Amino acid sequence: MLNFEFKNPTKIIFGQGQTAKIADEIPAGAKVLMTYGGGSIKKNGIYDAVKDALKDFEVIEFGGIPANPAYHQLLDALKIIKEEGITFMLAVGGGSVIDATKFLSSAALYDGEEPWDILAKKIRTEEGLPFGTVLTIPATGSESNSGAVISNHQTGEKFSMGGPGLFPQFSLLDPTVIRTLPQRQLANGIMDAFSHALEQYMTYPVKAGLQDRFAESIMQTLIEVGPQVMKDPSDYDAAGDFMWCCTMALNGLIQKGVPTDWAIHAMGHELTALYGIDHARTLAIVAGSHYRYNLDRKKAKLAQYAERVWGIVDGTAEEKALAGIKKTEAFIQSLGIETQLSAYTDTYKTAAKEIADRFTSRGWTGLGEHKDLSPADVEKIVEMAY
Amino acid sequence: MLNFEFKNPTKIIFGQGQTAKIADEIPAGAKVLMTYGGGSIKKNGIYDAVKDALKDFEVIEFGGIPANPAYHQLLDALKIIKEEGITFMLAVGGGSVIDATKFLSSAALYDGEEPWDILAKKIRTEEGLPFGTVLTIPATGSESNSGAVISNHQTGEKFSMGGPGLFPQFSLLDPTVIRTLPQRQLANGIMDAFSHALEQYMTYPVKAGLQDRFAESIMQTLIEVGPQVMKDPSDYDAAGDFMWCCTMALNGLIQKGVPTDWAIHAMGHELTALYGIDHARTLAIVAGSHYRYNLDRKKAKLAQYAERVWGIVDGTAEEKALAGIKKTEAFIQSLGIETQLSAYTDTYKTAAKEIADRFTSRGWTGLGEHKDLSPADVEKIVEMAY
Repeated sequence: MLNFEFKNPTKIIFGQGQTAKIADEIPAGAKVLMTYGGGSIKKNGIYDAVKDALKDFEVIEFGGIPANPAYHQLLDALKIIKEEGITFMLAVGGGSVIDATKFLSSAALYDGEEPWDILAKKIRTEEGLPFGTVLTIPATGSESNSGAVISNHQTGEKFSMGGPGLFPQFSLLDPTVIRTLPQRQLANGIMDAFSHALEQYMTYPVKAGLQDRFAESIMQTLIEVGPQVMKDPSDYDAAGDFMWCCTMALNGLIQKGVPTDWAIHAMGHELTALYGIDHARTLAIVAGSHYRYNLDRKKAKLAQYAERVWGIVDGTAEEKALAGIKKTEAFIQSLGIETQLSAYTDTYKTAAKEIADRFTSRGWTGLGEHKDLSPADVEKIVEMAY
Repeated sequence: MLNFEFKNPTKIIFGQGQTAKIADEIPAGAKVLMTYGGGSIKKNGIYDAVKDALKDFEVIEFGGIPANPAYHQLLDALKIIKEEGITFMLAVGGGSVIDATKFLSSAALYDGEEPWDILAKKIRTEEGLPFGTVLTIPATGSESNSGAVISNHQTGEKFSMGGPGLFPQFSLLDPTVIRTLPQRQLANGIMDAFSHALEQYMTYPVKAGLQDRFAESIMQTLIEVGPQVMKDPSDYDAAGDFMWCCTMALNGLIQKGVPTDWAIHAMGHELTALYGIDHARTLAIVAGSHYRYNLDRKKAKLAQYAERVWGIVDGTAEEKALAGIKKTEAFIQSLGIETQLSAYTDTYKTAAKEIADRFTSRGWTGLGEHKDLSPADVEKIVEMAY
């Protein structure tokens, strides 16, 4: 096992019928900015429940935050925070709303000229404006970690930020929220969480037995409850397992003491930037070809995965590894998610070269757990995903 | 899954060669009380490394804390804290030293007349004097939770205490510390952690799929690395897995959203009080008979455990359940731990009645996940463990 440090101070409030509890978690007298997305919370009852819980606080709302939250829109919210003297924020939404709120948390206390520098210059946020979250879409794990991803439409960039100041003070996780989610978002959430577990796990053996088994546990549980959730989002037990898996997949725990890959996420972000494909679906496109391309170096772990997660016990390590990849793709497809780029766009044939060129032009260091996948490797992997 | 709240703010610093880091975690200018046990840390180098890390702080030492820390001895340390104006504590030891330090943390800020009331009247500690830990014996998980157990030799009581104010600020977990531990303590640590996972898991199915798999992961990993640790405590990889399993088994995570049993711990504490048997070994004595006595009500979960943890797939649920119990006892015995009370004392024949009478006299509510095991049940279970 590698040396590590781990601290996650977010308080999780999990279960149904607990929205009123958030009032106890917000400092008395706080002036609250409530952030949310496109307005679905006004149809499914979450908006009303949250507003009722906040009735003793002065609340200003900032809605309309889209998927892949955009820097320049968030500057409007930043202005409100400063002009109104906001002292606490409450993000009511999925990963995009929570990530946007994390940016605002950092920017509110940032004393530089240009808040984009937090992302462009990778400035770590040691302290942020405190905030909580009410999660409405299980997927990203942002409700229990200190990272965020923000897009800048003027520069065409999508960068990540983080730091210990960006953990939510609390997160309310109510599994009943998935009842009104469209099938597409449910499938995306299962895929995103599965990929988080897989990308932190699928490297090479480092004798971190418990981390391996925890990652396998998350994947096994998603494989079990994913189809149940898709079939009946009002199945509370399945929804609860799904929601808790999403949180545990990216709250920092399973990445501690082990190498992590994340090349699939890096390539996927570019597919979203180029084609506007849903984040989770870009991961589905890249995963299979990434593992086939890196079969030799990941063979031992792929075989372990095939054995433990998929029960594939016959064959050589290579045969098991390949069978595990096939099972993974079949699982993704069973969620209604296509695994080839050509299913999403007709102009796919330029993708590999374009993405490789983007990596080259940024002067990025290599991708993957060995940090040695070059733009040429990326080009081949994306090509294999056509 | 049941509703739950979860927050664990302890910062874990895991790995070798990191003792110097603790200086960064203690507030500058702090006046530190360093607590420790019988002095083994002076032989194995830990004392010197910690003292070196603390060289910029004013440090007062309080050593000699025994297993099952005793209230009246700790009053001497409490006097030092108050007279010297201690502002931070550092526990260097195993669960007993850490538990003692938690009592001191609470008592230092307690404004009642009689600090024993914190335990006797179950006063929850919302705020304590801040402290960190340097773990020297993996076992109890106390390094990453907010609970403690303290004995009072005058009243013959052994009570637990807790509250959110009692999480360590940080805990340093260095797997190399087990190199100089005696076989007996290694075996006790494996048994204690295994029982923690087992007692939180072995109840009835509540469709908390991830919690089940996490508990199974801890047990599977302990079954795998336990024998390696016993054979060669200098095997760093095995030691790391062992240490991390101990922490994860009782840091709160796997008990969230599920019922928990803890009857084995409750009966075990009485065997320690009556016969002075090591805590971990009392769990080994009670476990098998507890599960056999409650076979009907725990059958479904016992069968799941047998299948997933021990790979027992043939037979009826009852046959699998019984086979799982046998495998568990064989594993415990393989650590060199006897599983019958008569192996520890000649005067065992009065134990069942005495323990049942103790429970009766205290007017305790029932034990187990259904809170309905009566003193008469306890008497039968302990008898079965002779």
